[in-house]
Amino acid sequence: MEARAAISHSAKAPLTIEAVTLGEPGPGQVLIEAKAAGLCHSDLFVMDGGVPMSRPLIPGHEGAGVVIACGPGVKSLKVGDRVVTCAIGECGECGQCATRRTNLCEKAGLPAMGVGFAPSPHFTLNDGPVSVLAPGAAFASHTIVDEVFATKIPNGVPFDVACLFGCAVPTGVGSVLYTALVEAGASVVVFGLGGVGLNVVDGAQLAGAAQIIGVDANPAKESVGRQFGMTHFIDARKTDDITGAIRDLTGGAGADYAFECVGNIDLGPKALGATRLEWGVLVQIGACPPGRDQLAIPVSSVLSGRSVMGSFFGKSKPRTDIARMMDWFVQGKLHSDALVSHRLPLERINEGFKMMERGESIRTVITFD
Amino acid sequence: MEARAAISHSAKAPLTIEAVTLGEPGPGQVLIEAKAAGLCHSDLFVMDGGVPMSRPLIPGHEGAGVVIACGPGVKSLKVGDRVVTCAIGECGECGQCATRRTNLCEKAGLPAMGVGFAPSPHFTLNDGPVSVLAPGAAFASHTIVDEVFATKIPNGVPFDVACLFGCAVPTGVGSVLYTALVEAGASVVVFGLGGVGLNVVDGAQLAGAAQIIGVDANPAKESVGRQFGMTHFIDARKTDDITGAIRDLTGGAGADYAFECVGNIDLGPKALGATRLEWGVLVQIGACPPGRDQLAIPVSSVLSGRSVMGSFFGKSKPRTDIARMMDWFVQGKLHSDALVSHRLPLERINEGFKMMERGESIRTVITFD
Repeated sequence: MEARAAISHSAKAPLTIEAVTLGEPGPGQVLIEAKAAGLCHSDLFVMDGGVPMSRPLIPGHEGAGVVIACGPGVKSLKVGDRVVTCAIGECGECGQCATRRTNLCEKAGLPAMGVGFAPSPHFTLNDGPVSVLAPGAAFASHTIVDEVFATKIPNGVPFDVACLFGCAVPTGVGSVLYTALVEAGASVVVFGLGGVGLNVVDGAQLAGAAQIIGVDANPAKESVGRQFGMTHFIDARKTDDITGAIRDLTGGAGADYAFECVGNIDLGPKALGATRLEWGVLVQIGACPPGRDQLAIPVSSVLSGRSVMGSFFGKSKPRTDIARMMDWFVQGKLHSDALVSHRLPLERINEGFKMMERGESIRTVITFD
Repeated sequence: MEARAAISHSAKAPLTIEAVTLGEPGPGQVLIEAKAAGLCHSDLFVMDGGVPMSRPLIPGHEGAGVVIACGPGVKSLKVGDRVVTCAIGECGECGQCATRRTNLCEKAGLPAMGVGFAPSPHFTLNDGPVSVLAPGAAFASHTIVDEVFATKIPNGVPFDVACLFGCAVPTGVGSVLYTALVEAGASVVVFGLGGVGLNVVDGAQLAGAAQIIGVDANPAKESVGRQFGMTHFIDARKTDDITGAIRDLTGGAGADYAFECVGNIDLGPKALGATRLEWGVLVQIGACPPGRDQLAIPVSSVLSGRSVMGSFFGKSKPRTDIARMMDWFVQGKLHSDALVSHRLPLERINEGFKMMERGESIRTVITFD
């Protein structure tokens, strides 16, 4: 069938909307008609050359839509199901799916992330190859994925919110609940109140953190952060000694947990220094550009008991935890709808990325109507 | 009273044995007659200027002896008790003593480590001030400490073994049990089979680790390591690709836990790279010299779920856990007596440090007879 998709032909060039051809769903695969897709910094990071991928490329990895056809042997989904797709999958049967220690399925974990390095088996562009940034190819009007990459959306979650459960929500909320294991009563500081940082705030309030301190250079983020449960705000542009300000807010001790959601390689070690000497934890979420990728962690900074953790997708299980988080949203425990600041049709996707670069949007969602 | 002590007058100079004057034990303090003291790399690190301390200085922080007098109000010890002293204390009453998250007592934790920065309140040298590296001043024939720095030695632990429970044993064993929380069946790799590394091996066998891989440039360490429970040995001088060798031994996945016990700043990131991508943990134990103190951790190395932890004294509680570990030794669960390779009188202490620098000893113990 024919579909429309936003295509990246070269680094830093605007996306172009073009017709692509899509095959039939194979065994265990579903054909999805897109309804909404979130614009994420990771798309921009890849589109700008942060990760080398073969082009032409269909970016997008936060998609929501409706199943309109199933290949043979699909077990967990049926035509008409509303689903969210995600960059990694969960087979539910392998050893790594069986343990809480990782979210990387042996069959559909990180290797699946390598899809951008090879032509898509489903899409062609002008009879030639085209790659996808994630299996869901969220910036296409239709897509085909293995069912393990798609999670059913419960009633009460509209498509334009559901799509954010494909990346931003599990990355932020999961990093609190499944990476850092923040406990009730803890103090948390979040550096960068973008799409991921606000979800860290949301996860921290869900976990019962007593103090949730947001740090951002944009003072407009204060009111947004408070919607998600942030208790204190530090304006990075007006504060010379951010570490000192965090210590003052935490009785001199420093925060129990710090989350780096910016992707500034110099920030992580400073964030670690703003945590408790005895057990402070830095969770590094922000990806950093090649060549500026090394965290410089003084041994003296960790020796008394601090630690540094990485977090990919928050250690959230792609299907199990996404379903759970959508339920929490329906129950009013998460504030994910407040993430959607702008809605645009696919044809105006480049405007969305421009707003992201200028820091004007929280999350722009592409709607396919 | 008069005592004998090994004194450091300047960096890298040999210690000199001199007479020092010791006061009376004050409230809550005990006077100890030394019986044995371990020589630790940390002593050498400080003596060589790795941490700036005021001199003249009495080094030594692994001491065992007998209580010969108690000041007013001492509750937990009496004259005749055999005790081991330690660089940090445990009051047992503060908030930090009450939590398993740290071993740093609010009253006798890291600030107590600052003793070397100020003259000792107990010792004088030729009527002038003298500092101590640790409250126990283990290289003195007699010493005074607050009782919270001393732990009673059970029957069955001779002094020359007991003194090692003042640092080497809890640092190594604790880093396995209380920092990394190694679980039964795990794979562990230990870089550096010195006094601390061998105790990491011992802790790992106690925890039930299935694979305990030792890495050292000295092939003589293989037979020593196996005494403690090491299952595999990698000769660092003969192995070009150590990470590859560790992957081969662990079914391609990498180790669950890596322990850096060398203090080589370039080693930690490599050790981390030899752990599982999904949940590998690096525990950095080795202290690194000033100016070469920054671990360069690629974000890409931790992003999928690895973490880096520091460990001071293994997160072992100075009194509670030392007592527990000595019981384990009596029960045959730890092999701590195999650490003692040499015994020397105080007058020959510099020979002990020379053997340490040449890698000829495991642990040299000073005996006071």
